[in-house]
Amino acid sequence: MNIKEKSRLKKIVKSQKNNFPLEQCFYTDPMIYDLDIEIFFHNQWVFVGHIYRIPKKGDYFLFSIGNESIIIIRENNKKINCFYNVCRHRGSHICLEEEGKLRNLVCPYHAWVYNLDGQLKSARMMDKNFKPENWSLNKCNSKIFEGLIFINLSENPCDFTKFIEPIEPFIKFHGLSKAKIIARKSYPTKGNWKLILDNFHECYHCQPSHPEYCHVHSKDYIQAYGAGSNTGPESKLFKKQLEDWNKKVKKLGHLIGEYSEIKFSNFFRSAERTPFSNGKLSETKSGKPASILMGKFTEFDGGYTTIGPSPFNSIIMSNDFATIFTFIPKAPMETEIEIMWLVNEKATEGVDYAINDITWMWHETTLEDKRIVENNQKGVLSKKYIPGPLSKMELGLEKLKFWYLKHLELSLEK
Amino acid sequence: MNIKEKSRLKKIVKSQKNNFPLEQCFYTDPMIYDLDIEIFFHNQWVFVGHIYRIPKKGDYFLFSIGNESIIIIRENNKKINCFYNVCRHRGSHICLEEEGKLRNLVCPYHAWVYNLDGQLKSARMMDKNFKPENWSLNKCNSKIFEGLIFINLSENPCDFTKFIEPIEPFIKFHGLSKAKIIARKSYPTKGNWKLILDNFHECYHCQPSHPEYCHVHSKDYIQAYGAGSNTGPESKLFKKQLEDWNKKVKKLGHLIGEYSEIKFSNFFRSAERTPFSNGKLSETKSGKPASILMGKFTEFDGGYTTIGPSPFNSIIMSNDFATIFTFIPKAPMETEIEIMWLVNEKATEGVDYAINDITWMWHETTLEDKRIVENNQKGVLSKKYIPGPLSKMELGLEKLKFWYLKHLELSLEK
Amino acid sequence: MNIKEKSRLKKIVKSQKNNFPLEQCFYTDPMIYDLDIEIFFHNQWVFVGHIYRIPKKGDYFLFSIGNESIIIIRENNKKINCFYNVCRHRGSHICLEEEGKLRNLVCPYHAWVYNLDGQLKSARMMDKNFKPENWSLNKCNSKIFEGLIFINLSENPCDFTKFIEPIEPFIKFHGLSKAKIIARKSYPTKGNWKLILDNFHECYHCQPSHPEYCHVHSKDYIQAYGAGSNTGPESKLFKKQLEDWNKKVKKLGHLIGEYSEIKFSNFFRSAERTPFSNGKLSETKSGKPASILMGKFTEFDGGYTTIGPSPFNSIIMSNDFATIFTFIPKAPMETEIEIMWLVNEKATEGVDYAINDITWMWHETTLEDKRIVENNQKGVLSKKYIPGPLSKMELGLEKLKFWYLKHLELSLEK
Repeated sequence: MNIKEKSRLKKIVKSQKNNFPLEQCFYTDPMIYDLDIEIFFHNQWVFVGHIYRIPKKGDYFLFSIGNESIIIIRENNKKINCFYNVCRHRGSHICLEEEGKLRNLVCPYHAWVYNLDGQLKSARMMDKNFKPENWSLNKCNSKIFEGLIFINLSENPCDFTKFIEPIEPFIKFHGLSKAKIIARKSYPTKGNWKLILDNFHECYHCQPSHPEYCHVHSKDYIQAYGAGSNTGPESKLFKKQLEDWNKKVKKLGHLIGEYSEIKFSNFFRSAERTPFSNGKLSETKSGKPASILMGKFTEFDGGYTTIGPSPFNSIIMSNDFATIFTFIPKAPMETEIEIMWLVNEKATEGVDYAINDITWMWHETTLEDKRIVENNQKGVLSKKYIPGPLSKMELGLEKLKFWYLKHLELSLEK
Repeated sequence: MNIKEKSRLKKIVKSQKNNFPLEQCFYTDPMIYDLDIEIFFHNQWVFVGHIYRIPKKGDYFLFSIGNESIIIIRENNKKINCFYNVCRHRGSHICLEEEGKLRNLVCPYHAWVYNLDGQLKSARMMDKNFKPENWSLNKCNSKIFEGLIFINLSENPCDFTKFIEPIEPFIKFHGLSKAKIIARKSYPTKGNWKLILDNFHECYHCQPSHPEYCHVHSKDYIQAYGAGSNTGPESKLFKKQLEDWNKKVKKLGHLIGEYSEIKFSNFFRSAERTPFSNGKLSETKSGKPASILMGKFTEFDGGYTTIGPSPFNSIIMSNDFATIFTFIPKAPMETEIEIMWLVNEKATEGVDYAINDITWMWHETTLEDKRIVENNQKGVLSKKYIPGPLSKMELGLEKLKFWYLKHLELSLEK
Repeated sequence: MNIKEKSRLKKIVKSQKNNFPLEQCFYTDPMIYDLDIEIFFHNQWVFVGHIYRIPKKGDYFLFSIGNESIIIIRENNKKINCFYNVCRHRGSHICLEEEGKLRNLVCPYHAWVYNLDGQLKSARMMDKNFKPENWSLNKCNSKIFEGLIFINLSENPCDFTKFIEPIEPFIKFHGLSKAKIIARKSYPTKGNWKLILDNFHECYHCQPSHPEYCHVHSKDYIQAYGAGSNTGPESKLFKKQLEDWNKKVKKLGHLIGEYSEIKFSNFFRSAERTPFSNGKLSETKSGKPASILMGKFTEFDGGYTTIGPSPFNSIIMSNDFATIFTFIPKAPMETEIEIMWLVNEKATEGVDYAINDITWMWHETTLEDKRIVENNQKGVLSKKYIPGPLSKMELGLEKLKFWYLKHLELSLEK
């Protein structure tokens, strides 16, 4: 981006109005998209999978974002490594299958062989001055936390401990390190990643668009907390429910409370525990438990945990299962939504849980969101798209937009 | 477009030679294409449908051009409205189906409700300062004339009355307001819109390429009038036929004569009435009538009416049916040709007409033109494409080119 | 390309390191791709077919490269002409089928008729000043040599005689002018043309990737000569085999020796004759002859001829059949590999040869190379692709890269 383009963009960033969504270019312009990837996606710790997928030495799976393919592979029972899927010789992809099991990482082109720690083990016919130790696979920053695999594509990743700190207790309580994946689904969506997040960060659309979600969650919860704590106008009824529930749950020794960012930083995190209404115990059609308890839960407490580690992930958990979202930008107007569902590793299918009960709500809801975002993108492309005023139930979107613009502005000033 | 590009294009415009087609860039360059849409398509009144498609309150259909989707909807038995299909809130498409019937226009995203006149009727959870009257749907200029629905995407559309005036009697005589649509077909064509129009504005190719057209129309007509009055060398035989026919038809009280532009303006219109040869009465394989008479015709007069309201439409009418073309640019090298066929609304299928008799000639001919244009586009992409000399039967194309270049030049000088 | 871009590219060209492959931009950048086509492809004599495809007057086939379509047509029993497939009138493609037989070249649009020598024979309805002799089809430079049809898309093609001279004896000995095509196959590959050539110019990958090739050829041949003479470390064993074989073959009166470029020029040619190992007589699974002898061979001599007329072709010949490759760039990351297999025109299928025996090795090997290159391209797109050190068996690739960079540098200085 040259100086002229930079100064033009700075002006546009400054001209965005409070309480209105972003202008067209933020959802369509390929140059802004490239910046987004660099400034946002590459600077976040992003959850891409769970250790359950690769339990044994040599097990691996691939994660793709844009032109990057990342190999996530188990070195031994203590260690998982992440590498860029690029041979150090002439650049071929090394792993060609989405997942598998390997003894070594062998490039299919010229058979350079790497150990599971990324070190070059052998390369035939090289010059005598060739030093294999200089040609290890490029590592991608990664961190395993409670069984969750996070990666960070930055050259100077921010500190993981600092990143995870405020949301740590919320994740830990659910015992995700003792979980297993029971389903994974992918929803390729023809919309800019920010349209997907705009959608995810407000629950104003839930009533007209999400019958399943509205079946499970109460109107008052949706109004005040549907897109996170205080993302809509206060509901006295729900406030009362929350206070009562907090007291009850505290007695059980379960976790309560919430977290949201106070100061502006590279992070955009949130977490909270809230009650279901109407005696529901889990985010299912019947409201009944869908599996056995996870983590430190001693009994079903009628509550629900929502965690946003970054804009690119969302973790939503009942007492007995977890739904984890990854939002992966693919092109200026293409994004992939990936969902993983996890239950207690000790649960048995058919006995303790049925997959469809667990995936039902977010599968249906995400199909609806995919359609919504695609129609939104079409309209945003019109010369007549002009951002309109936001409702009182779109505070989450406004907060996200504020963070996005501030972050972008600072980056443009560098 | 920056100043440098503008001045480069001005030079190219000036360097186009008389009696030769345009140079490559006019048929391939995305920048020129974008200009074309803005300068030409957005400044014309374009026919997009007939009231017959939406007889009852709430009936609508969509018309798409580029990134724009237009809702054409009946408000009541007197009024039809055209709106940009973009919600004023966050920009979603409102109507998702190609056609349908609605009570109100309800955005599927957050359920903002608009009346059929475009006014915002309700929006939940808005701030107390929110004024719904400021957030009506964006209207698209439209005009109903003789049952034909015209739209104009300009912010300052030229006067419709002035536009329609010279071609008004030609359209009115045919009674299109009392017509019904019996077929609609679409021909997506991989060619620049100007290649499609070049093709439509000359009949030099009719003999080698259009057996059906040559079956219906005489060689002498094709030569002199195939692409409109005097678009080829005079034919003494046809001149005589026309004079004789004019006398005969005048006596019947039917319309005669022709219109073409004399002075340069924003408009590029034409109209004429001409006779079939060989006693044919309608533009059909047999030459026999294909349906009952329309409009003010008192008997079959053996004639034919051709009207070009703008470069983007053509209306071709026998005494008993009308064929209406819309040419819709889609991308630098993609255009959609849409055809609608209409008959007297009192005619009954199977009794008064058979659809295939009526669609036969222009359906076959348009399939041929689609193929022709696609092969023309391929060749025009070659570095060896150099415009060649036009024949004496390509005066219509030359006229169109002159208008196009002059219009473009004036726009570049603004 | 403006001055700034040119100077940027010059710097990049200079910064490429010896004994490392090219940097990312050379394999991905559309601007460099366009330059490549202009500087490299358009300046080479490229083999595109054999006279066997068009034995009779009026027989033709088409060859496509980028936006260009070339008609290769037989004028009479002595002459073949090559024309750009673009009508001189309005630019339509003239020939629409991949191959066929014509009396004249008639444009399907307006029926301009050209003789088989390209001269405009008739055009209806032209102005009296129109001179048909000025509107012949645009010729494409072409040359028939030993039955092989070469074209050159340059406006100032380099001298064919000078071009063919050093490789002439190698081609002539095989009697290709008395050959027939028995199979043609196309391998569309999602990779930059230079990745395809990198692959073709080294045999370091043969052992891990090409079981069929390694079945036919010996380890020592592959090491030293797999990608042409001395493209890998010397093998004493193979050197001895070659010397012994040269003596033996000389006695038979067959051709021996090799050619490679010494001085830098527009040309990048090579040729050599080498022995099979293990008593093999032909490049087949069994090693047994696959057809009857060709050209001047008096008996099977156990040898093999490899000729690289330009980067865009390779001719590989046993005593009894020839395999000819054409590498056709299609887009920055798309290339088509075309292979033709030829045998003695006197051979009879089912009696003297079986097609599958002959196509087996290079068909399987090319499918493998297609996969290899596509995975290489994917990795090269990563931000972590950094050229790595080349092995001692990649000297052919290094030589090609040197020639490419030098050629590009000189062109940028013009």
